[in-house]
Amino acid sequence: MSSARVLLTGATGFVGRQILDGLIQSGRDVVAIARQSPVVRDERVEWRSTDLHDTLSVVRLMNDVCPDLCIHSAWSVSSPDFWTSDDNLAWAASSLQLARAFVASGGQRFVGVGTQAEYVDEAGLCFESGTKTPGSSLYAVAKDSTRNVIETFCQVRGVSFAWARIFNVFGIGEAPYKLIPSVIRKISQGESAQISSGVAVRDFIDVRDVGKAISDVALSAVVGGVNIGTGQGLTVAEVARRIAALMNASDRLEVGALADRPGESSMRVADIGRLRNEAGSLAGRPLEDSLLDTIAYWTQPVRG
Amino acid sequence: MSSARVLLTGATGFVGRQILDGLIQSGRDVVAIARQSPVVRDERVEWRSTDLHDTLSVVRLMNDVCPDLCIHSAWSVSSPDFWTSDDNLAWAASSLQLARAFVASGGQRFVGVGTQAEYVDEAGLCFESGTKTPGSSLYAVAKDSTRNVIETFCQVRGVSFAWARIFNVFGIGEAPYKLIPSVIRKISQGESAQISSGVAVRDFIDVRDVGKAISDVALSAVVGGVNIGTGQGLTVAEVARRIAALMNASDRLEVGALADRPGESSMRVADIGRLRNEAGSLAGRPLEDSLLDTIAYWTQPVRG
Repeated sequence: MSSARVLLTGATGFVGRQILDGLIQSGRDVVAIARQSPVVRDERVEWRSTDLHDTLSVVRLMNDVCPDLCIHSAWSVSSPDFWTSDDNLAWAASSLQLARAFVASGGQRFVGVGTQAEYVDEAGLCFESGTKTPGSSLYAVAKDSTRNVIETFCQVRGVSFAWARIFNVFGIGEAPYKLIPSVIRKISQGESAQISSGVAVRDFIDVRDVGKAISDVALSAVVGGVNIGTGQGLTVAEVARRIAALMNASDRLEVGALADRPGESSMRVADIGRLRNEAGSLAGRPLEDSLLDTIAYWTQPVRG
Repeated sequence: MSSARVLLTGATGFVGRQILDGLIQSGRDVVAIARQSPVVRDERVEWRSTDLHDTLSVVRLMNDVCPDLCIHSAWSVSSPDFWTSDDNLAWAASSLQLARAFVASGGQRFVGVGTQAEYVDEAGLCFESGTKTPGSSLYAVAKDSTRNVIETFCQVRGVSFAWARIFNVFGIGEAPYKLIPSVIRKISQGESAQISSGVAVRDFIDVRDVGKAISDVALSAVVGGVNIGTGQGLTVAEVARRIAALMNASDRLEVGALADRPGESSMRVADIGRLRNEAGSLAGRPLEDSLLDTIAYWTQPVRG
């Protein structure tokens, strides 16, 4: 699909803007959809402000652009209540309408963005074809159900389909209430950072590596679920300790000061065989580099 | 919920009009939604012509009516391509938006209409809590995914939820291309009726009994999946033979003249313990009475 017309939704989002960057780096022209103002000015990018919850506008968009490849990263996760929000129903609905309009306009490949939360809790690594779905949260069920309907629809219509499940993404542009930004901000303000026991093992991945990986997946021919992670597990407490150490503030991290979130899974680490071998996406940044960049991002004077 | 405000979607549909009848028989006032002209004039029924694919109209409807109980039977199954139609995506999307608006307006109980096709092929009876879902068709996946999202959403919001899975419904008002109408019409036109080998075992249930059963389920407190069937299995060939015999035309039924549909399940019979014991819905008509009424319906001069 070297000259394919590429459409990207959620192009100003935390992950979407990095997918856009990955596509630009790969030399693609992109029609970027977002309701906010553009974050990237590039001759390769055509911005459009379509409201994806407006079915008629989406149909008009698809008939106008006629994309070959659609990468759908738009969803609402910027508020702490995203696990249970009504927005999950609206985004599931709008995602189905988007896929429908895309295929009706002649689209050839649909790549959706999912989440590790779709997997149920099981021991060991998460495998795309072995680990069951969906997890129990409304967010997980809405994402997994959206995937299931669109994947089945694409199979029926002979359209290529992939679904990128992102593990513990962090970095530049993350919502401030999330774990890593909140630890960095507390410490940078001279306060103590309190976290839970932090015993949960997670697969932490830099959002820039996520963007590049999803761009690689989209431009490959891989089909079905694809885990977007590093394949390496680390406890939440260990990551917080490394951040505190990099900020020379190990004495101001209080591990175990907050209660653990009930029902949280003990381990979520990706098997990344499919990402590496089928999508041909290679390894990303060292964790320490990512943490240093993230600390720099949150401690810039303008964000203090 | 004796004085509950009841809203019914798809109220002019094959099944929906019988649910409406069941609700009227149970003495309920109903706000009936349909795009077609009303089929029932009754002082207990207020008709509205809301387009359920228009999210804003649905929000306005819910805020205006403020129903306590929503029975959602609208979906597109009137065309033979319903197994793979784009309409499945539109109806899944619109069903999510409907549930969202219903709960936001203060709704207390949501009852959706599903299908036996949601079950995967397994030996023995279909059990609501034991038989896996979803079946492989787009229709089945769209229905089951819709159920999963709305059920999870209702759990999160403390709203009561049930999902009625209809088995082999037939009778007055069925789409003419379906098995039983086509056999009756061929024979009544003096021609031969050709069917497949007919070895598949099905749970045939009169649409009037379906409507009463779903009304019973909706007005009960039963939660989760509820099979709507008779619990009795019969081969397709046997039902066709009974129809031909009742029409005095056994010599004009050609069993095995058509190819079997690939991938068709060998047996689909409901366990109806939950319908009988938890929803308190009692047995329906004898099959022969239902077949006679159906034959009379299709052989009325106006339909000849």
